[in-house]
Amino acid sequence: MTNKRVQLGRKILSANEEYAQENQNLLREKGKYCLNMISSPGSGKTAILARTISDVRDRVKIGVVEGDIQTDIDAERIRATNAPAIQINTDGACHLSATQVNAALHQIGLNELDLVVIENVGNLVCPTAFELGEDGKVVVLSVAEGDDKPAKYPAIFSKAKVLLLNKIDLVNMGAVDFDVDKAMADAKRLNKDIEIFCISAKTGEGMADWYDWLIRKAGK
Amino acid sequence: MTNKRVQLGRKILSANEEYAQENQNLLREKGKYCLNMISSPGSGKTAILARTISDVRDRVKIGVVEGDIQTDIDAERIRATNAPAIQINTDGACHLSATQVNAALHQIGLNELDLVVIENVGNLVCPTAFELGEDGKVVVLSVAEGDDKPAKYPAIFSKAKVLLLNKIDLVNMGAVDFDVDKAMADAKRLNKDIEIFCISAKTGEGMADWYDWLIRKAGK
Repeated sequence: MTNKRVQLGRKILSANEEYAQENQNLLREKGKYCLNMISSPGSGKTAILARTISDVRDRVKIGVVEGDIQTDIDAERIRATNAPAIQINTDGACHLSATQVNAALHQIGLNELDLVVIENVGNLVCPTAFELGEDGKVVVLSVAEGDDKPAKYPAIFSKAKVLLLNKIDLVNMGAVDFDVDKAMADAKRLNKDIEIFCISAKTGEGMADWYDWLIRKAGK
Repeated sequence: MTNKRVQLGRKILSANEEYAQENQNLLREKGKYCLNMISSPGSGKTAILARTISDVRDRVKIGVVEGDIQTDIDAERIRATNAPAIQINTDGACHLSATQVNAALHQIGLNELDLVVIENVGNLVCPTAFELGEDGKVVVLSVAEGDDKPAKYPAIFSKAKVLLLNKIDLVNMGAVDFDVDKAMADAKRLNKDIEIFCISAKTGEGMADWYDWLIRKAGK
């Protein structure tokens, strides 16, 4: 990498960090907890969110900022639960920026919410490098992706507060080979404080513990 | 995006394109066919390659350039089939560059091979924008990722010569909900010439048609 490229890279990151700080100030001023959800495409982020919103609606009011390259398929799935969702289309870009999230936070109706979840673009690599002003990152790993993913994509597992090991029903029925203990041990080796929940957004298995964590963090 | 950033982005792409051209010249001069395999993490690229190498070894000699952020887990899986594999660790970067591939092509022993497969970093977005000098791209989609992926990540489906719809055994056993016809129709809408093979690298289902395509392209 040339010096010029490194310098410009730093400038872009630092403009992002300024907006991330502004987002964090806004969220703290309003007393709202915020999570940045990161995973590969198709790990089940939207399914987890839609089920969570429905199941905890009497305790926690959740709003969602949806990041996608194209389409508003995911925001529509969230709106079907009657939760507010702001769709951001990145138009090819591989991650959300704090600037985009800032605009969404001003539209979502923060005063009516307890918790904001930002569903990032499906990408296990790039979104990790861009702070959005969140209180914590949640990494979702579908068991169909394989138990070597914490070792192969360590950055997000090192930084996340929570790992949701999703589609655990596929392990239980013997449909995929996935060593749960190995994946959990690798994630803990990278990040001893990471909270891990084995869940299935499809069957509901394991979701209650994740809800308890979320309700606690939302101050409820 | 500032003008300066756009200009620098263009310069980086164009340096990549120069190396991509050099790679293409080298491959054509030696008469070797080359594929660039792109997918989300955990769609099964390495499993597909390992089974393909073993099953076609009497017809086609395959070498693999392995792109990963960290670890040489994938190269070791390929070497277990006795095929040559050159591991590139991108050290955090989200895609392979033509420069990295150029170095690997000079190490892999091209003269002994019929076909080179570049297994890109697991990322459905960024690798699509960087030509490596290949004859064609192969996109792999695991049915566990959901049938909305062609619509949500259109760039790679628009550019690929082949779509491998992997883990089709999970659809057959009813373990995941995935509308094969919808995914295929969406991919064809983006790219009418795309060749689609429904396969399972685990059970071997559908692999024979993919092998026929590969053997034809390798000029065998």
